[in-house]
Amino acid sequence: MSERSERSEQVVRAEKLDAADELAGVRSRFVLDDVVYLDGNSLGALPANVPGRVEDVVRRQWGELRIRSWEESGWWTAPERIGDLIAPLVGAAAGQIVVGDSTSVNVFKALVAAVRMAGAGAGAGAGAGRDEVVVDATTFPTDGYIAESAARMTGCTLRPVAPADVPGVLGDRTAAVLLNHVDYRTGRLHDLPSLTSAIRAAGAVSVWDLCHSAGALPVGLDEHGVDLAVGCTYKYLNGGPGSPAYLYVRRELQDSFDSPLPGWNSHAEPFGMRSAYEPAAGALRGRVGTPDILSMLALEAALEVWEGVSVESVRAKSLALTDFFLECVASYVPEGRVESLTPSTHAERGSQVALRCDDAGDVMKRLIERGVVGDFRAPDVLRFGFTPLYVGFGDVERAARVLGETVAGAV
Amino acid sequence: MSERSERSEQVVRAEKLDAADELAGVRSRFVLDDVVYLDGNSLGALPANVPGRVEDVVRRQWGELRIRSWEESGWWTAPERIGDLIAPLVGAAAGQIVVGDSTSVNVFKALVAAVRMAGAGAGAGAGAGRDEVVVDATTFPTDGYIAESAARMTGCTLRPVAPADVPGVLGDRTAAVLLNHVDYRTGRLHDLPSLTSAIRAAGAVSVWDLCHSAGALPVGLDEHGVDLAVGCTYKYLNGGPGSPAYLYVRRELQDSFDSPLPGWNSHAEPFGMRSAYEPAAGALRGRVGTPDILSMLALEAALEVWEGVSVESVRAKSLALTDFFLECVASYVPEGRVESLTPSTHAERGSQVALRCDDAGDVMKRLIERGVVGDFRAPDVLRFGFTPLYVGFGDVERAARVLGETVAGAV
Repeated sequence: MSERSERSEQVVRAEKLDAADELAGVRSRFVLDDVVYLDGNSLGALPANVPGRVEDVVRRQWGELRIRSWEESGWWTAPERIGDLIAPLVGAAAGQIVVGDSTSVNVFKALVAAVRMAGAGAGAGAGAGRDEVVVDATTFPTDGYIAESAARMTGCTLRPVAPADVPGVLGDRTAAVLLNHVDYRTGRLHDLPSLTSAIRAAGAVSVWDLCHSAGALPVGLDEHGVDLAVGCTYKYLNGGPGSPAYLYVRRELQDSFDSPLPGWNSHAEPFGMRSAYEPAAGALRGRVGTPDILSMLALEAALEVWEGVSVESVRAKSLALTDFFLECVASYVPEGRVESLTPSTHAERGSQVALRCDDAGDVMKRLIERGVVGDFRAPDVLRFGFTPLYVGFGDVERAARVLGETVAGAV
Repeated sequence: MSERSERSEQVVRAEKLDAADELAGVRSRFVLDDVVYLDGNSLGALPANVPGRVEDVVRRQWGELRIRSWEESGWWTAPERIGDLIAPLVGAAAGQIVVGDSTSVNVFKALVAAVRMAGAGAGAGAGAGRDEVVVDATTFPTDGYIAESAARMTGCTLRPVAPADVPGVLGDRTAAVLLNHVDYRTGRLHDLPSLTSAIRAAGAVSVWDLCHSAGALPVGLDEHGVDLAVGCTYKYLNGGPGSPAYLYVRRELQDSFDSPLPGWNSHAEPFGMRSAYEPAAGALRGRVGTPDILSMLALEAALEVWEGVSVESVRAKSLALTDFFLECVASYVPEGRVESLTPSTHAERGSQVALRCDDAGDVMKRLIERGVVGDFRAPDVLRFGFTPLYVGFGDVERAARVLGETVAGAV
């Protein structure tokens, strides 16, 4: 078969897949151009309704109503209100998620609180039992750094292990376990239900980082009995650059959530201005200081793109997109030039494809010049994220084709 | 003298003061209406250049450049770049301030790092000496709550004392001292130079909260040898609702700044994605996670209103405004109806006036209905903040007059 006819075959398949795509219409809810944007796992594209909303927040809510907006424009309650908008996307009932702070700060809150819930740490006295924090050794670095700090500050030892080895190290000493749902580098999806269940069986507290899964696949926090979870909102949730992260605390654990960052926003009576701290009930115990309203309300608008969209349909399309990408890469890219690090089994795949490639840095630069935007992760990984809300099969075909031409030097 | 002629006298004085006000022209750099806005110490008014800037950040930087903006639009370096814009306003040389996170989170970073710098805390072993964190007992509550957490997590005891009593309690056990530069409630300005000097003499580390002073009066961080400082940016710096706070770490202490929140943004090589943490040099060691760009770049635009404005001229006008307000209140408000909690001595006064008033909650509601916006602090305080950049003497006269009419029931 000539290269030309192979191309045509993939193009025809892409057209058919696009025609049958029930999410195709959602793309118009975003501001996009003719770039193939496969970096939504780093920064989601701009939802079309966000600029107008932000303008209203700045000009009317801040500029005209000023201080009155804390009540009248719902600023004060935004963290829990927007948390409730994220809840259905991660399989949580309302009242368990608050939005605010960065993912790193939320990992710290969650992990310290988890250790305290487990009755572990320095406060429990030497030899009191649970003194180990287990962390995914392959995690996004910040989780590891913060976990180290949380362990240090609670008198625990940090134990980094590969996620698959977690069940083997759980025991009477395990206080808390911090895992990533999807590996940021390879795109591997870890088995949240069975790992959570193993952690619970060991009497430890589970903390999941959902940065690379929320908005791309079903998480099922409530269903699977996850204890605590955190995630960012600027990837598959399209909240904008550095938009605030969120914290999930399972309802049954909220009363024992003892935050290391008990800011005034988490007080039972924040405007009582009392010198004694008394934590609020419920999810808002996870709040800290004054929420950054501009970024937060941009996120609120961004979450409207989910209207009428189920996470299950997103997951189905995501798998179809990554399957098709791997298939097109196999056709277009010379054998041996790249190697997929992403599991071929659906149950182990997130919504990205990571390709190992010797000259990945250079290759990504050339792809971007040709209108295919993914990202490079040192030292040798090409990362392509597939956001089913706005990426189509035609985009996938084009990305793989340009990749093939680029690595073959046929630019 | 009749009430009518008294009024006229204050009106005439206001006109003269406004005519001589060298900062009068700065008011046009803000979006204002006919409301007398005396709540800039809670939420600064909207600078006129902010809406256009935010629109550009949303539509072009995020919407068109997307991920490229982390480099091309300077997103990645925003925390330290904007820190350098704040630096001259608080008397700091460049390279010592980073912007990001809330004030509460920055208090936590600063206080834990301070305790560690003092060689104190649990890590130093029992009996190792400095095990006390002194905190302003009259502080804004969140500082006290966070200080309690920082003390607990570093094995220290928290000792709340009135700022005036701080020198008396300093000693070999003092690790760190957290003080507010201006009391949020009464508007009292504490003596930063002498307190900082006493703290240094005791071998402890000073941490100042500048929320209610930065942008309203000279702080002189470098000059007075302050060790660490934090502040918000949405009051006298007009950064917008919940805009990010900042952290100052004196240059000589940067290498020993050991953050409890060592997120990936503070890594020496953040994109190296290395599992071992290695802190960056300089101020950016105080960064944590991904900065919230929308709020941060709105702040950057807001700081442009300071062009050609000196903090000294702002301080001079601030004192003239509060003097004039107290004078007008004395004329317009029936004797004994309100009582000023704000020191009459200039050296002890911030940029607000707090009036105790039995029915303060009700009175503030009525003032707001009549276009004079201050705020109410439970249980009985009327708070009026004076932002010299946009408040004039005519505003002051009107506010006091409406207050007099309101408390006299002459609405």
